[in-house]
Amino acid sequence: MSDRYEIRLSGSGGQGLILMGIILAEAIGIYDGKYVAQTQSYGPEARGGSSKSEVIVSDEEIDYPKAMKLDLLLAMNQKSCDEFFPDLKPEGTLIVDSTFVTQLPTPKAFQIPFTRIAREKFKREVVANIIALGTLSQLTPIVSAKAIESAVLARVPRGTEKLNRDALRAGIAAAKLAKKVWMNSEAVPEVPQEDLLDSY
Amino acid sequence: MSDRYEIRLSGSGGQGLILMGIILAEAIGIYDGKYVAQTQSYGPEARGGSSKSEVIVSDEEIDYPKAMKLDLLLAMNQKSCDEFFPDLKPEGTLIVDSTFVTQLPTPKAFQIPFTRIAREKFKREVVANIIALGTLSQLTPIVSAKAIESAVLARVPRGTEKLNRDALRAGIAAAKLAKKVWMNSEAVPEVPQEDLLDSY
Repeated sequence: MSDRYEIRLSGSGGQGLILMGIILAEAIGIYDGKYVAQTQSYGPEARGGSSKSEVIVSDEEIDYPKAMKLDLLLAMNQKSCDEFFPDLKPEGTLIVDSTFVTQLPTPKAFQIPFTRIAREKFKREVVANIIALGTLSQLTPIVSAKAIESAVLARVPRGTEKLNRDALRAGIAAAKLAKKVWMNSEAVPEVPQEDLLDSY
Repeated sequence: MSDRYEIRLSGSGGQGLILMGIILAEAIGIYDGKYVAQTQSYGPEARGGSSKSEVIVSDEEIDYPKAMKLDLLLAMNQKSCDEFFPDLKPEGTLIVDSTFVTQLPTPKAFQIPFTRIAREKFKREVVANIIALGTLSQLTPIVSAKAIESAVLARVPRGTEKLNRDALRAGIAAAKLAKKVWMNSEAVPEVPQEDLLDSY
């Protein structure tokens, strides 16, 4: 990994992106022992219902905690995908919630139906963000699945541990399948959506 | 208010400072319509159990989301008070949780026993952060009590609205009393702690 790794989590208000950013930052900072800055910004436009959360990781103390060129972009809706894709480095990783993102700006995107998995497998749409965290732990070099699990379990309400652990594992399984499809394809990793739903 | 207003909320892990930062940022950004950046940083030292959360407010979009010279410092324990007081502007506002902060770096500090109020009046230590939010709404020019209340109610678990609304109001009442004592004193606003506990 380079000295600095920049992540933006984006989507709609209500998709739990801020909690996701906090859990991810705690997993990396507390459990994996790197320097992490986690930021959300609000402006007069925040009333529109867009939401984003940023996580910067570094081997050294972080002087400038705002993302400039993203190494990883998670887009949980079409609008945030369109808006933020230009900020992604050419070699950066794009992960989209294919429940809502249907027009891809690049064929090199990991498409995983987080919300659909949450809805159909868990009957709880709110765990889409936890499923996405499981996926992130497989598709970024900067956090371990173990650290993510510890951080999730420290943050979620008591009594929901099993649900959240299962959601995390569903995200990990989906990511593994997506990577496999990626490696078997040439440049266009299209993951069969049904396979993702059935993969765990 | 100046173009930029910098707040740091500090204390121990488990005192709810990150949630406090998020609620404060949402109150200012979404309900009061200014630009806000909210950041937490983690490093290898985070294992020690210290916690801090920063909120930057501006009339313009925020390029640099990290606090440099604080306008407001909330210190919920002695260690964070000692560590961060040097970052406060000379004319800045210091608010301490007098349950834990007993050695003041300046006589010009608002001393309010947030945790003791939470414990003795509400039998729930976890609402100390919400009481502190109520106090902040009175002691900073950058957020209204109404916006804070909306933001708190949007974030706290369902079923805890009354508890949190009451906690907020206790913080507002304590701040009003502290300000009154401040104005009646010369330079050393020492608030009788018992009066604060009985003030609402």
